[in-house]
Amino acid sequence: MAAPSGIDFTLRPIGRVESPLASTAEAPRQGDEGAPDAYLILDFDVQAGLHGIAVGDEILVLTWLHQADRKVLRVHPRGDRSRPEAGVFSTRAPSRPNPIGLHRVRVLDLDGVRVQVSGLEAIDGTPVLDLKPVLSGNIGER
Amino acid sequence: MAAPSGIDFTLRPIGRVESPLASTAEAPRQGDEGAPDAYLILDFDVQAGLHGIAVGDEILVLTWLHQADRKVLRVHPRGDRSRPEAGVFSTRAPSRPNPIGLHRVRVLDLDGVRVQVSGLEAIDGTPVLDLKPVLSGNIGER
Repeated sequence: MAAPSGIDFTLRPIGRVESPLASTAEAPRQGDEGAPDAYLILDFDVQAGLHGIAVGDEILVLTWLHQADRKVLRVHPRGDRSRPEAGVFSTRAPSRPNPIGLHRVRVLDLDGVRVQVSGLEAIDGTPVLDLKPVLSGNIGER
Repeated sequence: MAAPSGIDFTLRPIGRVESPLASTAEAPRQGDEGAPDAYLILDFDVQAGLHGIAVGDEILVLTWLHQADRKVLRVHPRGDRSRPEAGVFSTRAPSRPNPIGLHRVRVLDLDGVRVQVSGLEAIDGTPVLDLKPVLSGNIGER
């Protein structure tokens, strides 16, 4: 699609993931399948945006899955080649035109711009794009 | 934050929203507060990615809220100046460093690359970035 004129489509990472997961081969398929606790190391210049987030909160973390293949439109779900291919938009596969990861986590600790979170299925060094609250009445997304 | 070298941080819209909402002034604050049905007009070159999505499915639509102010880190929640300012990451305000909209909708109709969805709080012309399924066991996000 031709980009509409005048719109800035460049992401500006607000930090990165610090995790014991070193490669996607180790990463679980979903956050509820044994992903380790991790840290979000945010940039000092976005610290004001954290006001109102507290230990114990459930939040959504949006990441940029920078190792994903952006040309892929069909995948075998969960990488299982015995399953028929599905369109990427009907799966949570990382590979897709805009590989934005969506992770529901709990805030375990908060120290300045260093946020410890529960079970995050993103590898060490993954860029962080955004944090959002889980809305009341919604269970949210992993 | 200095962008990690070698990572492509440029979003590639996969389509756009077609909606009766012409301006953000008309847009409801949340999708459950009277947002109109809308169409996602996707690009033909991503049509293969839709395979597996059916009428009746609940999906997450990720958009690029292109009119948001990316420099804002604190807002009055829901634009109500009588409420104390909060960090943008503790709110669903559109303004934030990476204004990615997250909308939970139901697929009402599907005709090629034209997807009709229920209650979408995004204005006409909003770029669409991604679609994801709502995972079973999760209620999902608006």
